[in-house]
Amino acid sequence: MTAFDDALLAPDSDLVGLTAAICDIPSVSGDEAALARAIEAMLRARPHLEVIRDGDAVVARTNLGRERRVVVAGHIDTVPIAGNLPTRLAGTAEPGTKGTGDVQGDDRVLWGRGTVDMKGGVAVALALACEIGTPGVEPGVDLTWVFYDHEEVEAARNGLGRLARNRPDLLAADFAILGEPSNAGIEGGCNGTMRADVVTHGVAAHSARSWTGENAIHGAAEVLARLRRYEPRTVEVDGLAYREGLNAVGIRGGIAGNVVPDECVVTVNYRFAPSRDEAEAEKHLREVFEGFDVTVTDSSPGARPGLDAPMAQDFAAAVLAVTGGEPMPKYGWTDVARFAGLGIPAVNFGPGDPLLAHKDDERLPVAELAACRDALRAWLLG
Amino acid sequence: MTAFDDALLAPDSDLVGLTAAICDIPSVSGDEAALARAIEAMLRARPHLEVIRDGDAVVARTNLGRERRVVVAGHIDTVPIAGNLPTRLAGTAEPGTKGTGDVQGDDRVLWGRGTVDMKGGVAVALALACEIGTPGVEPGVDLTWVFYDHEEVEAARNGLGRLARNRPDLLAADFAILGEPSNAGIEGGCNGTMRADVVTHGVAAHSARSWTGENAIHGAAEVLARLRRYEPRTVEVDGLAYREGLNAVGIRGGIAGNVVPDECVVTVNYRFAPSRDEAEAEKHLREVFEGFDVTVTDSSPGARPGLDAPMAQDFAAAVLAVTGGEPMPKYGWTDVARFAGLGIPAVNFGPGDPLLAHKDDERLPVAELAACRDALRAWLLG
Repeated sequence: MTAFDDALLAPDSDLVGLTAAICDIPSVSGDEAALARAIEAMLRARPHLEVIRDGDAVVARTNLGRERRVVVAGHIDTVPIAGNLPTRLAGTAEPGTKGTGDVQGDDRVLWGRGTVDMKGGVAVALALACEIGTPGVEPGVDLTWVFYDHEEVEAARNGLGRLARNRPDLLAADFAILGEPSNAGIEGGCNGTMRADVVTHGVAAHSARSWTGENAIHGAAEVLARLRRYEPRTVEVDGLAYREGLNAVGIRGGIAGNVVPDECVVTVNYRFAPSRDEAEAEKHLREVFEGFDVTVTDSSPGARPGLDAPMAQDFAAAVLAVTGGEPMPKYGWTDVARFAGLGIPAVNFGPGDPLLAHKDDERLPVAELAACRDALRAWLLG
Repeated sequence: MTAFDDALLAPDSDLVGLTAAICDIPSVSGDEAALARAIEAMLRARPHLEVIRDGDAVVARTNLGRERRVVVAGHIDTVPIAGNLPTRLAGTAEPGTKGTGDVQGDDRVLWGRGTVDMKGGVAVALALACEIGTPGVEPGVDLTWVFYDHEEVEAARNGLGRLARNRPDLLAADFAILGEPSNAGIEGGCNGTMRADVVTHGVAAHSARSWTGENAIHGAAEVLARLRRYEPRTVEVDGLAYREGLNAVGIRGGIAGNVVPDECVVTVNYRFAPSRDEAEAEKHLREVFEGFDVTVTDSSPGARPGLDAPMAQDFAAAVLAVTGGEPMPKYGWTDVARFAGLGIPAVNFGPGDPLLAHKDDERLPVAELAACRDALRAWLLG
């Protein structure tokens, strides 16, 4: 246990300080061990929790014998740091707030990698995990708090996926809340995501005698033209409107400055509404790029909003009452889809604007921390 | 001096053995020192030559007081090795050839990197440099033999260019012969070559919310479409027909698998007939890619065939008599353009099929070595 971990554990740390401390322990995907250790230590110090460590995931459970169980989950990794750590707190708290940042009207903003995606949500969960279930703070449901690794990389390494494979018992629940940024409102479901390589082939030749070859990059003109012409759908699912998208996210080709290249690879990313499953999404991609060599390299299904589940409706009402947030569709893929795959209704609910996720100027209005904590706390205790 | 250098120096080495030895000293651009040292040692052992070393270029001159001077030049570097070294000699010499490979009818083939581009030509020059000018083997002209570095990389590093800047006196001549592969016939002049980056710009965004960005790779569709539609010219210059070409030789774009990219770079290579100068070539490129951001990164002018020079006509007749090779246009850019730039008529003449240059299966019919040597020797002594 290092001094740094001790600082994180400080029992009198306010929610803003806790969020900053979590952000200031760098945890780019693959490098989550230090943060996982600090979180584990903080939770193991609470006698009302059973704590399990799996790789760099930490699971903490109450065992109060309640009829129903709710999972609150969040990933602890981030995309790479872009000179935006340590965090920086800007703005001033309103007079009379004692600088805790835990009240309405606080206009301070916490800048830095992870503040939005999603260490704000992790801080809210961690603070509530330490409190709810202690004597006198008794929830209506049993709780499973999940802090996991490797969300920002390829699906095969996802820590929640690993738990679902190795310890499905740990994820068993009646409802799940994922603390991904959602402007402190509920965002239901998520689009699916599929990546594919669309490859063109040619015949290599010296560029001084290009007529002896066939240029594979020129052959990609039609692939890009189809992408340019493509008109993505907007699909209504369970009352929420999901916007799709089909984009080249990479292109590569070329052997040397004097060689006609024999291969060009266009990597596309298709975001598809949760009304379409992975097989249908792949079929659609193959239709769009008919005549070309298409290889799916990565895929995750979407999730329907799940707002028809009674607990989801109940939670949505509680959130609306505290934060004023109406349910919205989630465009980005999130791990609510994994819960959906396990048959557990799940929604996104966390502080921060998802449009700022992964940006160099990622930043969080700290008032949303308290709003999310208060809404979730009220519902769990209510 | 290593044992390996000694082997190269072997005075009784036949032309095939010499070629193989030169190829078997790897000399990928930037790594020519060992071969330059071996060549320098071989030439310094000949009292009829004045030898100058400049970087990894070696220049050897006769000083016989002749009225005219001929430069015979060749680069000693190669493109990267592709598992095709050491060389391998396949096939059998005809009966009665004593295995020297130096006679007509030899059907052996020397396989390996550099055999065509252009260590066969280097071997011919090196063998003749050692012989011509010795007592009883007296040429009608003075001779300057130039072996130079860095031909297979960007023009700024070219060893012949360096000599032209630092020691133009060493290149002064009435006629130049460059031993680039030309199927043992004369290839006149060369096309010019220009590389440019054609860049498209967009606005980065998360690919889950792609409508908030603008995809720079999609924006390259029109660049590739223009390349695909482009119809290169064939231009007659001094009686030889030059085929042009405009090709993408590289394309790159993409930040991450979930990001709409804000830049895409298409690297194009334009090969232009020697009737067009560099300024005209750039103007043409800018017209083709009008509306896009075009940056010229590398450029070398072409060279007119120069076959109207009396020495060139005389040499062409001698080659025709020995090898049967009619003058042809050279499509690839070669350093004859540098001689043209110095006002020295110059032609390509060397063993090997230029279509095999840079190929993994680069290989040389060894009979062409003797044919080139005999033709050049006859003309120089004649």
